[in-house]
Order: sequence, then structure tokens, then C-alpha cells
Amino acid sequence: MKTTALALSAGDPAGIGPEIIAKAWSALRAEGPSFMVVGDAQLLASAGGGVKVRAVTGPVEAIKVFGQALPVLDIPLQAPVVAGKPSSAHAAQVIRWIETGAGLALSGAVTGLVTAPIAKAPLYDAGFAFPGHTEFLAELTHVGQRQAPHGPIMMLAARDLRATLVTIHTPLSAVPAALSIEAIVNAGLVTVEALRKDFGIAVPRLAVAALNPHAGEAGALGGEENAIIEPAVRVLRDLGVQVRGPAPADSLFHAEARATYDAVLCMYHDQALIPVKMLDFWAGVNVTLGLPIVRTSPDHGTGFDIAGRGLARADSLIAAIRLAAEIADRRSIA
Amino acid sequence: MKTTALALSAGDPAGIGPEIIAKAWSALRAEGPSFMVVGDAQLLASAGGGVKVRAVTGPVEAIKVFGQALPVLDIPLQAPVVAGKPSSAHAAQVIRWIETGAGLALSGAVTGLVTAPIAKAPLYDAGFAFPGHTEFLAELTHVGQRQAPHGPIMMLAARDLRATLVTIHTPLSAVPAALSIEAIVNAGLVTVEALRKDFGIAVPRLAVAALNPHAGEAGALGGEENAIIEPAVRVLRDLGVQVRGPAPADSLFHAEARATYDAVLCMYHDQALIPVKMLDFWAGVNVTLGLPIVRTSPDHGTGFDIAGRGLARADSLIAAIRLAAEIADRRSIA
Repeated sequence: MKTTALALSAGDPAGIGPEIIAKAWSALRAEGPSFMVVGDAQLLASAGGGVKVRAVTGPVEAIKVFGQALPVLDIPLQAPVVAGKPSSAHAAQVIRWIETGAGLALSGAVTGLVTAPIAKAPLYDAGFAFPGHTEFLAELTHVGQRQAPHGPIMMLAARDLRATLVTIHTPLSAVPAALSIEAIVNAGLVTVEALRKDFGIAVPRLAVAALNPHAGEAGALGGEENAIIEPAVRVLRDLGVQVRGPAPADSLFHAEARATYDAVLCMYHDQALIPVKMLDFWAGVNVTLGLPIVRTSPDHGTGFDIAGRGLARADSLIAAIRLAAEIADRRSIA
Repeated sequence: MKTTALALSAGDPAGIGPEIIAKAWSALRAEGPSFMVVGDAQLLASAGGGVKVRAVTGPVEAIKVFGQALPVLDIPLQAPVVAGKPSSAHAAQVIRWIETGAGLALSGAVTGLVTAPIAKAPLYDAGFAFPGHTEFLAELTHVGQRQAPHGPIMMLAARDLRATLVTIHTPLSAVPAALSIEAIVNAGLVTVEALRKDFGIAVPRLAVAALNPHAGEAGALGGEENAIIEPAVRVLRDLGVQVRGPAPADSLFHAEARATYDAVLCMYHDQALIPVKMLDFWAGVNVTLGLPIVRTSPDHGTGFDIAGRGLARADSLIAAIRLAAEIADRRSIA
């Protein structure tokens, strides 16, 4: 039996987090991977559909109880929770749960961090200054102070498709200006390193998507391929990466094309998310590459519209826990 | 037996057109739909992989010979063709083939027009002033002089998915500025009218895709949803259209989502083409809606890189011929 577990930050308490965490525990309690929730034990007991919850002191105890009860490192909320109603009254604890999980992962006390979904608005109201989880974790792990290549780079991992992103939550009109040779090369190198280290692919094959229709048709339908993406691909190739592109995005995602690469680097959010969600709507996983800790999360949001009704599916969270454990295993061997 | 046929303009003679036309004829000669090529009879005889070609005087004769030979309304090229090498020496005839096919369709002599792929560069070199087939056909059919709603609106039709486009061959950076309430309403109305008239759907359900990630997340990730797309959806609804959206594009294309609409209106090229080509890489069809004639084409290009080698697949051309015949049948009944 392993001697340590993953940490799972509980996310927004008014969303589907408590339900899907309880469902994920029910699905994984027998075989693992083991995880310890960082959250509010009482909330999980009341909102978790009747699963048995146990407050624990840390991952060593969590491992021991995992087969019998959902282990929670208890950092209690200070205000009542109403399912479906986000509140900034919970913001301080929600942030603390993430910080604690990240700290445990950084110290090696847990093997990695899985984050349940948060909503940004209630955290912003309480003074949270990051666009989201990913940027907050980058700050907590000081990754921005490292030499390039470094993360955070977002990967979406679905059945048969891994896609990484050069821009993430950028309005479409701002995407072209947000692209640069440096950003593409950095994202490409982080992707390839992760494919080797985290996914066990000895010689990773990278595809790079174009930005414009028909990959810009030699400049007639947009200049970013000629000016930015092609030069970045040349730099990557010169650095020894097995890479092709920029390829028209509509030619990259059918089964025959997917068989030609291990990951595809996308220029903007929906370019990656449309194919990922077509291939695997329920069980896609968001992986943050280029951090000193292992971090995954489900690829969906807080689901306030269905929270508290037992409807939410835990497929993506379960897949996120499994993938975090796999990556942690590979890193521990390396 | 029907008394008239479709016209098929032969497209760029140096591309895969002659091969896939011959293959389509071989696949359809027994059961139809019948078509008459408008092109160079000798080229089709030499580049068509040995199929029997017959020069005909028009669609009535074409119908009679279709079971025995590939019927061609012969408008000969004036220069030799080298497979894979486009040349502006052919431009005048390539344009004439399209004009002739469109004229036959406008007059009712043929039931519709299917266009094999053209390359733009050699036509531009010869003075052709249109971005492509679609715009040229709009001019030939005087559709721009009609009151809105009018075409041309591009639809991509794949197995289980029909997607129409507000912008087509627009660089991604120019897409946001190219969107307007008027353009979206026009495209939505043309789409719905075509679903009724051309696809036989009595009460069409339309979905409208958002432009930005997460549909703009209430303005935080882009303002076009609030300023343009939502107002356009409201106008469509007020006009009696059964419509939903703007919906995050990554939530629109998995099987469960596709079951909720008959067509999805997309804001830009790859938003539609990524899912269409994932679902049906080989047999997607481009349909021009809102023209007074029926017009379809394969959703691929001239394939100069593989032309003349017998490798090209005719799936998309065959699907385009079949769909043109279906639409023509529905219009003739209406």
C-alpha cells in the first residue's frame, strides 16, 4: 500500500464540489487512488449524499481511513452554505484550501493536488487577485521566477487527445496580439517535457495548430502563421522537437490526424476545447504543466444550476484524480 | 426516369477534379443521381482513369447516356494540363465552366450545380475578381440585389451536423469586427428557411455559437456576446425562430448537444469546420444557401499535391452530388 495520498481542494462549497467529491470517493475507495480532501468536513458529511466522512490530521492518516471513510483535512467554513448560491463569505476558506493543498504538494507530504471547481466572482469580491486556479498555483509555487521553459501551461486530456494552449481565457479578439514566438516556443517545450516526464512518451510528437482558416493560405487569410507560428515551429525543430505545423485546425482532429501526434498545441481556448469535449464530454481532464507540483482538475465548472440535487456527474473529477496519480507515479520513478 | 440532370463544373483541371469526377460517375452511374460535367471532354477521358466519356449537347442527352458514359458538355481548354501544376492559362475556361453551369441552373435546364474545387491564385492571375466560387455564384445569380434575408450563406453538412457560417474566409483577427446583428440575423433566417425548404424540416431548431471562451462569461472574456450575438438571437426569436444561444462553442458539438438542434450558426470558419471534419472528414459537403439555384460542392480543395496519382477520394463529391439532388427534389415539390 502506498504511504501517501493526493490532496483534493474542495472548491466552491455552493457548487457541485461536495457531491462529486463524495461520488468520486465512492468510486475509488476500494481500488484508489487515495486522496485527502482539504475542505469542510461537516459540509461534506451533509452535502455528500450520506457518505461517511472522517476528519484526519494529514495524508498518513488519510491513507489509513480511505477504504472506510472520506478523509478530510478540516478547515471549516464560517458561514452557512446554500447549494447553488455562491457567496464571498466562503472566499477566505476556499482560498485557504487551495493554499494548503499546494503547500502539502510542494513539501512532498502529498503526491499532487487535484482542485475541485471554484467560481471567480465570489473570490474577486473578497479580494482574490488571480484570473483563476492556474495562475494562483503558479504564484504559490513561484514558477514564474524560473527560467523558461516554464508553466503554467494548460493541457486538456481526453480519450485519444491531449491539447495544450498558448492562450487560455483570452477574448477571441485579443488572441492574435497575445501570440508570440516566445510564448509558442515556451508552451511547446513545456508540453514536450511533460509528455516525456508525466506521460512516459520517450520521443514525443507535437503538432501545432494554425490560427487562421486554411492556416492563413500563404498570408491571404491572415499573417500570424508566417510571422509568428512558423518561426516558432522552426525554433522548436532546431531545439530537437519532433514537430509539425502550423496545420489548418480543421485537419488536425479526426482520428487519422490524431494518430500522428502525442499532443497538439492550440492557439486559443475553443480550438482545443471543441475537439476535447466532442471526444470526451464527461471525462476530460485539465492538467497544469510546468509546475513543480502535480496538478489536475475536472474540465467543468461549479455547476451552480444543478448543485445540491445529486445530478452532477463525477466522471471528470474521477479521471482527474486517476491522471494525477499516474503522473505522480511517473515523476516519483524518474 | 428523371428528365433532367445536375450540372457539375469540372474545377481546376490540374487538381484532383478529373479523377474524383470519374470516380463519382463510376459510383453513381447505375443508381444516379445523373449529372452532366461542364468541362473538357478530352481531359476527362485522359485523366479520368479510363472511364468512358461522351460529349453531349445538354442535360437531356446527358440523362440518356449517363448509365453508359460520363456525359460532358465540352468546353475545351486551350493549353496542355500538367497534373499538380495550376496554370492561369486555364482560367478563362474554368470560369466559363462555372458560368455555364450556373446559367443552366438559373434557366432550369439542370436541377442544380455542383462545383468541383478551384484554386484561386491562377484565376486571380487571369483577372478573376471574387474571393471564391460562392461569391462568384452570388454575382452570377444577382442574389445581392434581393431584399434580406438572402445568401450566399455557407453551410457545411456532415453526418449528424449542419453548420452555417456568419464569416467564412476571414482572418481570425478580423472576425470580431465582421460580426453584426444584421449579419447574424440574416444568416440565421437564411439557415432556417433552407432547413424548411431544402431539408424538409417543418419547425427548424437553430443553435447559435458564442464567439468567446465560455460565451464571454458575462463580458469578462469578451463583449461580442452581450453587444451583438445575444441581441441578434433576440431578434431571431421575435421573428418566430426556435433558437437558443449564444452557447459556449465547446458545449455544442457532442452527440447530446447535436440532438438539440437542426443547424448551428457559427461565427467563424474553424468553429464550424473543426467539428464537421471530426465527424465526417471525408464526406462533408459545402452547400450554398440563399441562392436562387441549388449549389453544393465538396468541402476540400484542389489537392494539387496528390493530383494525377489516382489517390484522391471522391466521397465528398459523391455526397455533394447526392445532397444537391435531394435539395433539388424538395424544391421541385414545394
